[in-house]
Order: sequence, then C-alpha cells, then structure tokens
Amino acid sequence: MYIGFSEAETFLRNCSDAVIITHRNPDGDCIGAGFAMRDILTELGVRSRVVCHDEFPKRYDFMTSTGAGEDFEPQTVIAVDIADESLMGRYQEIYGGKVQLCIDHHISNKDYAERTLLRPRATAACEVIYDLAQYMGVRLTTHCATCLYTGIATDSGCFKYDCTTPRAHEIAAEMMRSYDINFARINRYMFDVKSLGRMKLESAVTRLMEHYLGGRLVMIVLTKQIMDEMGVQSEELEGFAPLTIQLEDAEVGIMVRERSDGTYKCSFRSANDVNVSEICQTFGGGGHAKAAGCTMTGDIADVRKRLVDAVRRTFE
Amino acid sequence: MYIGFSEAETFLRNCSDAVIITHRNPDGDCIGAGFAMRDILTELGVRSRVVCHDEFPKRYDFMTSTGAGEDFEPQTVIAVDIADESLMGRYQEIYGGKVQLCIDHHISNKDYAERTLLRPRATAACEVIYDLAQYMGVRLTTHCATCLYTGIATDSGCFKYDCTTPRAHEIAAEMMRSYDINFARINRYMFDVKSLGRMKLESAVTRLMEHYLGGRLVMIVLTKQIMDEMGVQSEELEGFAPLTIQLEDAEVGIMVRERSDGTYKCSFRSANDVNVSEICQTFGGGGHAKAAGCTMTGDIADVRKRLVDAVRRTFE
Repeated sequence: MYIGFSEAETFLRNCSDAVIITHRNPDGDCIGAGFAMRDILTELGVRSRVVCHDEFPKRYDFMTSTGAGEDFEPQTVIAVDIADESLMGRYQEIYGGKVQLCIDHHISNKDYAERTLLRPRATAACEVIYDLAQYMGVRLTTHCATCLYTGIATDSGCFKYDCTTPRAHEIAAEMMRSYDINFARINRYMFDVKSLGRMKLESAVTRLMEHYLGGRLVMIVLTKQIMDEMGVQSEELEGFAPLTIQLEDAEVGIMVRERSDGTYKCSFRSANDVNVSEICQTFGGGGHAKAAGCTMTGDIADVRKRLVDAVRRTFE
Repeated sequence: MYIGFSEAETFLRNCSDAVIITHRNPDGDCIGAGFAMRDILTELGVRSRVVCHDEFPKRYDFMTSTGAGEDFEPQTVIAVDIADESLMGRYQEIYGGKVQLCIDHHISNKDYAERTLLRPRATAACEVIYDLAQYMGVRLTTHCATCLYTGIATDSGCFKYDCTTPRAHEIAAEMMRSYDINFARINRYMFDVKSLGRMKLESAVTRLMEHYLGGRLVMIVLTKQIMDEMGVQSEELEGFAPLTIQLEDAEVGIMVRERSDGTYKCSFRSANDVNVSEICQTFGGGGHAKAAGCTMTGDIADVRKRLVDAVRRTFE
C-alpha cells in the first residue's frame, strides 16, 4: 500500500526495535539512507540496526563508522532504497513478506511492503528521507545530514545527471546552510579519488577501446583470456561501462565481458538520445534508456558483428 | 568603487553600445558571464559585443554560437570575471583604465574599474549576474540561463568543490524549475567527455606519477625531453595538475613542467588541509590554499629534492 508522509510519521513514532535493510551491492544512496534512518530513529528513541547482504565497502566508512547497531530481536522491519525483495539477498529468507515500511524512489518498486513511501521522481532515497525528516520536524545530526547529502550526491553523479531534481539542489543548499557537512571532502572521496590499481586498470581498459560507425559506437571487449592476462576478475570491472561513452563522438558504448560459462555479459550506455534498453530487448535483455544490458552467446567475432549491426540499425 | 545591485541596474539601464570583455584563457564562467550579459543587454535594448584575447574553445560553442555581436564603436566598457586588467591580454591596451563596470567574484579583484560589483563569496561571476538579473526583474532566455548554469557548474566542478555556495544550488534549482536548460547534456560535455588525444595523454601522464612520503606526495615531472618524446606541447598539459591528487593517499600533488628557457613551472594542488600557497611562497610563488604555483631553477634532481623536502617539512 502506498502511503504519504503523515502515515510514515505515525508509523515511525510508534515503532520499536527496528531492523533497517539496505540492498545488496550497496551504494552511497542505500548506505546513506540506512544510516540516516538509524540516526532519525535514535532521535525518536527507537533502537535500530542496519543490515546488508554484502559488507559495506571501506570507502563509505565515514557513514558506517557510527556502527550498524546492536543485536536484538526486531519488532519492526524497514527497507530503504529497495525496489524488489530479491535485492535483499540473504535477508529475503528472513524478512521476505515481512517489510512493514519501505522508503524508495524507484519507479519500478514492486509494492511488496505493508506500507510504501514512494517518490518515483526523487533523485535518491535520501531525498525522500530528508523531506520526511523535515515533515516530522526531526532535527538532524551532522552525521545524518552527511549521510543524506552523500546519497543524493552519489545517485545524481554530483548533480550532473538527468535524474537530478530541483529539490535535490534545494536540499543541498538547506544542508549547507544548516549543518556543518564537509561536502567537498565527501565529493572528493566519492568522485575524484582512485586507488592506484583502479587508475592502472582504467588506463589498461581504455587502451582496448574499439571504434565503430564513425566513432559513434565505442566497444570494449574483455574476453577471459584478456582478463587473465591483465590479472583481473570480471567483478573488478563493475562500474567501468561509463568509460565507453567518455569519448566526445560516442553516442553508444558497450562493455562486453566473457563469463566463466563462455556467455558474454554486455553492458550498454547511451550518451544522449539513443534508447539502449530497446536495443538490449532485441537480444532478450533490458534496463533503462541510458543504461541497459543483455547476454550474448556464440563466437566473439559474431557477437561483435551482431552488436555493431544492432546499433547501426538504431542510428539509421 | 564598489557598488551594489541598485547602482549596477541604473548603469545598465542607461548605457549604450557596450563591449563586454572576458579574460584571456577563457573558461566556462567568463564565457557564460559574457554571453549571458550580452543576452541581458539585448533584453534591455542595448547593442553589445563580447571580446576575448583568445579564441573561444570549440567545446563552448553551445554558448558562443549565438554570435559575439556586431562591430561598432563602444560607448560602454564592461568587464566580467576579470580580477586584474592584465588578464584582458591585448584588450588592456585598448580598454585599460576605461572599464566602467566590472562584475566579478574574485576576492583578489584589484578595483580597477569605475564601478565594481564584487561578490567575493560567490561561486562564479555567473552567480552574481543571475542575482543581478533577478534583482532587475529581467526575464532570462533559455540561452542566457544555459550560459549562467554553465558558469556556475564549471567554476564549482559541478557543485563538487569547497567554493560551492548554498546560493549556487538554489540558483540551479530555480533555473531547472523556470527554464528549459538541458543541464545533463551541458555537464556531460563539460565534465565527462574527452577527446581521444586527451584520453591518451592522461594515460601517458598518469604513468609518470612519482610517489613520495608514503604516497602523501605525488609528483609528475615533465622535462622538455619527455614532452618531446610524447610529442606534446607544455600548453596542452594545462588542466592536468588535478590528476596529481586523484590517488587515494595523495595530500599534495605537484606537476612540474620544464619551460623552453630551462626553468621549471611547478603547479601545486592540495587534496585536503595542506596550504600549498604557503609552500609556494617559500619559493617566491603563491596562489590559493588548494591550488598554487612557483618557478624553480637548477638541476631537475635538485629541484625534485627541494620540492619533496618542502612538502615533508609541511607534513611535520
């Protein structure tokens, strides 16, 4: 059932011992939302704990170092930034069908919870939680404001992408005026800083760029053999797909990675107006207009040709 | 003489045939400010022309393509985003000592104009011009809003850096609500897109990184010989200094380039709290706390050692 701020406030003011679930492969928004929600519940006198299928990556320590919370038998189950119960990972077995409040911003939200506070146009779950806290008149701690700013900044690419709302900017302004958040330092670590390994890997992957259709299509193909030679696992290349559309003429970028079973995972990105989800659907995949994916099988030369042909047809 | 919005409005409403001067080595803020000011003057019925010592780089075409203006004998001289007359380049000969209105945000502004509208805490000159237009009740065209957004976004690193003000965020929100600006496309071209040449050059420069003091100091030394081998001119490496503080442990970064006269141009960057301007001052240079520079002479091995020693002393 979809609810508004008023019902969400009533629920939060009357709950106790809450577990807050974040999604697997956690990012800045779900971690920010989880730890901000924990701060807000603490302010309301409610004990809470943040859980995640995966460990929180070290780079988010500035949010998680306050502690995920003590151990207790939860009376309340809250999910943040989770559109589908399957994204809970192993916590789905324990809490599947039992979420009492979900706070989310994904238009694809499956309405699986008893109560869902959904703002499908919001930049980030953290934007929804900030507005809820304002509605409730809860004073934020600096840590809480830091978490909420981080969620909004990371989901919007530091206010860079299409999904950035005017409200996201307004919230950033309000937080800068009212709370002592070190936004420049957060942004440096979220957007500018790289490990030496990552820097070398980007440089190596960049050298593999293939250019098609007058440079409008850029492809990076990583076979098992190439990844073995580079000494890199496929998982370490998550987040590299946007590199394919960094070149000035690139309209569509595809990163192809061979899986251990010999199939090819193809990650598409669109720089501007091409809807790559539609291209992926012709191969049985899907996703968003600007970021989508599909799986291909067969000989790599043939896979390459089918991908180029499909993009050429879209350009025509 | 420093003036406020009211005097600036009176001046603009009563001027005619204006030349708008932008600074040499033009960037997103001075180009945005120049062309936005031209749009505002057009709205007021005043003929104008934007001039610059250098050609406007092609990547700013979306702002400059409306045209810099026709040729006429100026009755009014306006400078935007120019802290010091010497930054006018060859236009200093013509308009030096004759600027009637300067609109700027640099605290270092020399107060060289008859009237200076200075907002030293503003993120960008474009922030000052937006607020002035609001004060005057001038309705912005989409092109004008696009120019102002671009200036604010580029000077703040897309709202990433310390210099970003709450007001910058509020203006972005207001412009997104009121004008049809394609901010995501602007940001893609200003921040994400690279030419193939630039991408290869970054990769090459990255490989030259030297690590000192446990990784807290990163240095890139480009001697004439190295630049010759890379087939690159020193000027092409403008804007590369921030690469030196991209590594996670880097506190201070120095890019050293040998000039044709054999001296070394050293560009310092600080990632966090180290004041690199103070370090540069010990070598007769200066600048800002997070970005400064100096010139060194002598043997490169000796230059390297003196630079490392100076940074070590600062860390101690």
